[in-house]
Amino acid sequence: MTNKEVLTEYVYQMISALSSYGVKDVVISPGSRSTPLAYAFASSKEFRIVRHVDERSAGFLALGMAKTASAPVVLLCTSGTAAANYFPAIVEAYYARIPLIVLTADRPHELRGVGAPQAIDQPNLYGHHVKWTVDLPIPDGESPTLPHIERHMARATSLAMTSPRGPVHINVPFREPLLIHFKDELPAITFNQADLAELTPTARGIDLLEQAIKSAEKGFLIIGEMDQSVSQDILWSFIRHLKWPVLVESLSHLRSNIPEDCMMYIVEHYDSILKNDLFKQHMAPDTVIRFGAQPVSKPLTLFMKAVKPATIITVDEDALFRDPLAVTTNHIQAQLGEWLTTVDCFDQIFEKDYLMKWLAANDIATQFVKQYIQNEQDEGALAGLLFERLEDGADLFASSSMPIRDVDTFFCKTEKDVQVFANRGTNGIDGVVSTAIGTQLVTNRELYLLIGDLSFLHDSNGLIASRYQDVNLTVVVMNNDGGGIFSYLAQSTVEAHFEQLFGTATGLTFDHLAAMYDAQYDVVKSKEEFIAAIHTSKKKPLRIIEVMTDRQENVVTHRKLWTAMGEELNKLWQV
Amino acid sequence: MTNKEVLTEYVYQMISALSSYGVKDVVISPGSRSTPLAYAFASSKEFRIVRHVDERSAGFLALGMAKTASAPVVLLCTSGTAAANYFPAIVEAYYARIPLIVLTADRPHELRGVGAPQAIDQPNLYGHHVKWTVDLPIPDGESPTLPHIERHMARATSLAMTSPRGPVHINVPFREPLLIHFKDELPAITFNQADLAELTPTARGIDLLEQAIKSAEKGFLIIGEMDQSVSQDILWSFIRHLKWPVLVESLSHLRSNIPEDCMMYIVEHYDSILKNDLFKQHMAPDTVIRFGAQPVSKPLTLFMKAVKPATIITVDEDALFRDPLAVTTNHIQAQLGEWLTTVDCFDQIFEKDYLMKWLAANDIATQFVKQYIQNEQDEGALAGLLFERLEDGADLFASSSMPIRDVDTFFCKTEKDVQVFANRGTNGIDGVVSTAIGTQLVTNRELYLLIGDLSFLHDSNGLIASRYQDVNLTVVVMNNDGGGIFSYLAQSTVEAHFEQLFGTATGLTFDHLAAMYDAQYDVVKSKEEFIAAIHTSKKKPLRIIEVMTDRQENVVTHRKLWTAMGEELNKLWQV
Repeated sequence: MTNKEVLTEYVYQMISALSSYGVKDVVISPGSRSTPLAYAFASSKEFRIVRHVDERSAGFLALGMAKTASAPVVLLCTSGTAAANYFPAIVEAYYARIPLIVLTADRPHELRGVGAPQAIDQPNLYGHHVKWTVDLPIPDGESPTLPHIERHMARATSLAMTSPRGPVHINVPFREPLLIHFKDELPAITFNQADLAELTPTARGIDLLEQAIKSAEKGFLIIGEMDQSVSQDILWSFIRHLKWPVLVESLSHLRSNIPEDCMMYIVEHYDSILKNDLFKQHMAPDTVIRFGAQPVSKPLTLFMKAVKPATIITVDEDALFRDPLAVTTNHIQAQLGEWLTTVDCFDQIFEKDYLMKWLAANDIATQFVKQYIQNEQDEGALAGLLFERLEDGADLFASSSMPIRDVDTFFCKTEKDVQVFANRGTNGIDGVVSTAIGTQLVTNRELYLLIGDLSFLHDSNGLIASRYQDVNLTVVVMNNDGGGIFSYLAQSTVEAHFEQLFGTATGLTFDHLAAMYDAQYDVVKSKEEFIAAIHTSKKKPLRIIEVMTDRQENVVTHRKLWTAMGEELNKLWQV
Repeated sequence: MTNKEVLTEYVYQMISALSSYGVKDVVISPGSRSTPLAYAFASSKEFRIVRHVDERSAGFLALGMAKTASAPVVLLCTSGTAAANYFPAIVEAYYARIPLIVLTADRPHELRGVGAPQAIDQPNLYGHHVKWTVDLPIPDGESPTLPHIERHMARATSLAMTSPRGPVHINVPFREPLLIHFKDELPAITFNQADLAELTPTARGIDLLEQAIKSAEKGFLIIGEMDQSVSQDILWSFIRHLKWPVLVESLSHLRSNIPEDCMMYIVEHYDSILKNDLFKQHMAPDTVIRFGAQPVSKPLTLFMKAVKPATIITVDEDALFRDPLAVTTNHIQAQLGEWLTTVDCFDQIFEKDYLMKWLAANDIATQFVKQYIQNEQDEGALAGLLFERLEDGADLFASSSMPIRDVDTFFCKTEKDVQVFANRGTNGIDGVVSTAIGTQLVTNRELYLLIGDLSFLHDSNGLIASRYQDVNLTVVVMNNDGGGIFSYLAQSTVEAHFEQLFGTATGLTFDHLAAMYDAQYDVVKSKEEFIAAIHTSKKKPLRIIEVMTDRQENVVTHRKLWTAMGEELNKLWQV
């Protein structure tokens, strides 16, 4: 075989295996060294090719797609710092448990560590932030090579999809020349995708859970973000049987699409409620069960830390279970699945009044939040307005920092079919535009991105994706000119240096960026204008609604809400 | 001591040590966990604080500053993916040998690996791409702690500045609360900066070099990019004594500021000349000496690889010497310094005709290049025009991909005081705007950035720096709508997928970006407009000249130049 034939067999065997093992989407950034794989992927009808010239944004684009599709997505780039630009998205994928298959093209061994251009130390490039990394052999035409890479693709996708999921890294060396022969059909593969195990709890684990439920007098279930593949029907059925207050983070997708008979159990305003001292004093639980990640809410974490309930069961698929407060008393290692329907929730001694108090508090909070949305016009109120008016079948992506917290406070439970997404693996404000676009490429539904000005700036390059793919996105950017969240923190008391180091106002607006990317654009300075804007129909693939707000005002009005709500909550114990 | 006092002592001791050991510039990105250090740096008059909200750009900004100042520069960010965004700049710094001191604030041990927000595995985050990494102890008020961190700052800066220089990473855990008491004065330190060794060649090494010079009949000296701290006077004095053809890459800074009596030896058109077969056939050297990095030029590397001269001496400070062609016969480990003045260059048997042929060829090339600049109007010709018209005291930053290659071809040697910079550690097209701004912040001279449209887009966030600092930059963006360099490669023969994967046209222009950042803006579509634009005076801190060019045309005209030049070069042997 000629070198070109050897190279051709190698890359087609590789992509054929990836296709067989479930990869449908490939995000490619341009570069020379990755040519053989790029041409092979592009020439096959089995893949959707998504393109981006900024590898940092490309990484988050793939992350959004993999997260939303709950399927492995391939990233492909050339050698050098291109690969280093993937790092933020890979770190997020690792902690958010997203199955990315990262393919980095590399120089052959003789061009590594010798001062060759665009050659860095790529094997093990991402350290502990991938589940596995492998440096593939050079295409050499020797008989062990093709079966090896074929089966290694199975290992890579299997590991990425094994719970807890996460990114894997495959480094692929190529010698020049880099051109291949094109094939019309993918070659047959000889190895079939592995049959992946489920992580089910032991009988002892289920017994533990049942005992906790039966012996609890006061308690609640917390549901945080979890993998998109978890069946919501199973969760609803569990909630229906449990009959406890259920504190649902928006990212669990259980604040919306709620079946009628589950509606009453859903407590979405725990973040606001748990700012109230009297409530916390009276409502200490003896038992807490948590599914999914630890929610965003700081009041909830402070409450748990202060109360230290006698039993806290965390159901988490990772042996390194998530428990930043060190309050968990039992870790049941498991994926949420069919087994949950077998958990016996009968013979409870649960205090009905404890449930009723949570529900009453949530009703009070709902009332105040809805009034606030009606009467105020700060960021929170406008965000709340947006949530109320999201149509059935539209989704919301919330950036980190203030937007996700505004979702926590102002997103009220609903029967509507609206899903809420965010990057909560590491809570970065980076890569958010790209992740949102990746999400939308999979859902094919209308998507609103709620984002602050610094976060939007950070990944303004995310919009480049719209030059290569059809995207459908409305960006609602809360422009408070700087880092709004810091005004809520103790740092803001240091007048001398606060604005320089934390406020970091840029004075930038997004009208020019909108023009650059041919986006429909509205700037709004009042509630009326905001309402008018969100009811104006979307005429272009990309839309930007820029809301001019004030950092200081947000803090003042938010605090007013919690004070007023607190006074009403106090009355629950004054009767 | 209270916790706040302990924290205060800790961070002030740390920054006092850094100040004593030569750190003057600190690049800070906003974030909560880094508050104690950010406030300490900002409150001290010993540091210039440079700010950026995008940590990827911040990394390259610091890189540009450290590279140009030839001094350690501190980077400071919060925990989480913020730190991961530094990775591309750190990788470039590692291979370009730039002394960055990367400080990443981290969560304390009890919040690591437990699912806490914004907590990633930061110790050893950058793997093999830093020279050293350390996870500092938590501020605890115990007696060993302060002396330890003080001396560790000495180790960190010493290692970063030890040849070959490079980035070091210091991870700093902080517990809440994060506020400090402010101090007017930095505390005294007890340890003085180490007296760093020079890497001088052994007597055997110098003897080797002298023997090579004395026994060479045909040869040349290659000078690539080297540390800014290398004395140019010493290099000129060596060139003066050596009397060989000297192939200087622009990044050596030896294509400009040339003393009159050295001017004749400087061969800057080797890239064009070595495309000529007849020249290569007749001009095989027996001896080559190289200082600094391997130059950009591919014809030069192909020539060396084909000829395999009997003696190739590479003087490189790294034990891992740079020699991608595997043709070096002797590696002399050394920094370029005083010792070079002691090298005996007398008693040569060097063939005068060999020297003369190089100089004649260079004259021919110069003539063709100057004619080309006069007559053509493609990217290369316009770039050449820009170089010719750079005023004494202005500098040029060239992006990777085509701009640095256009510098190689079209930047003619000059007595003018013009320095040329680029990122050649890993040749990425990322972070270029930021590196250029970092360079200008140190030189305080006029700076022109020559960049392609994709590279400009990639780091358009670099411009955010202009919202926080006074910058002075003219960006000349060659907008050929996509990846121009690929049109020169074999990939371009694949019509079916080339434009999708390599051309990657975005259709974007930079007028809106100019408006967003309040930059002076000209778009030019002809040579006349370009000349008019570069002679219009700069009225704003930021200026963008957008040159609309054509990818295909560039390839055609470049090839025409080489053909014509080649015919004239052939005549050197037809007499």
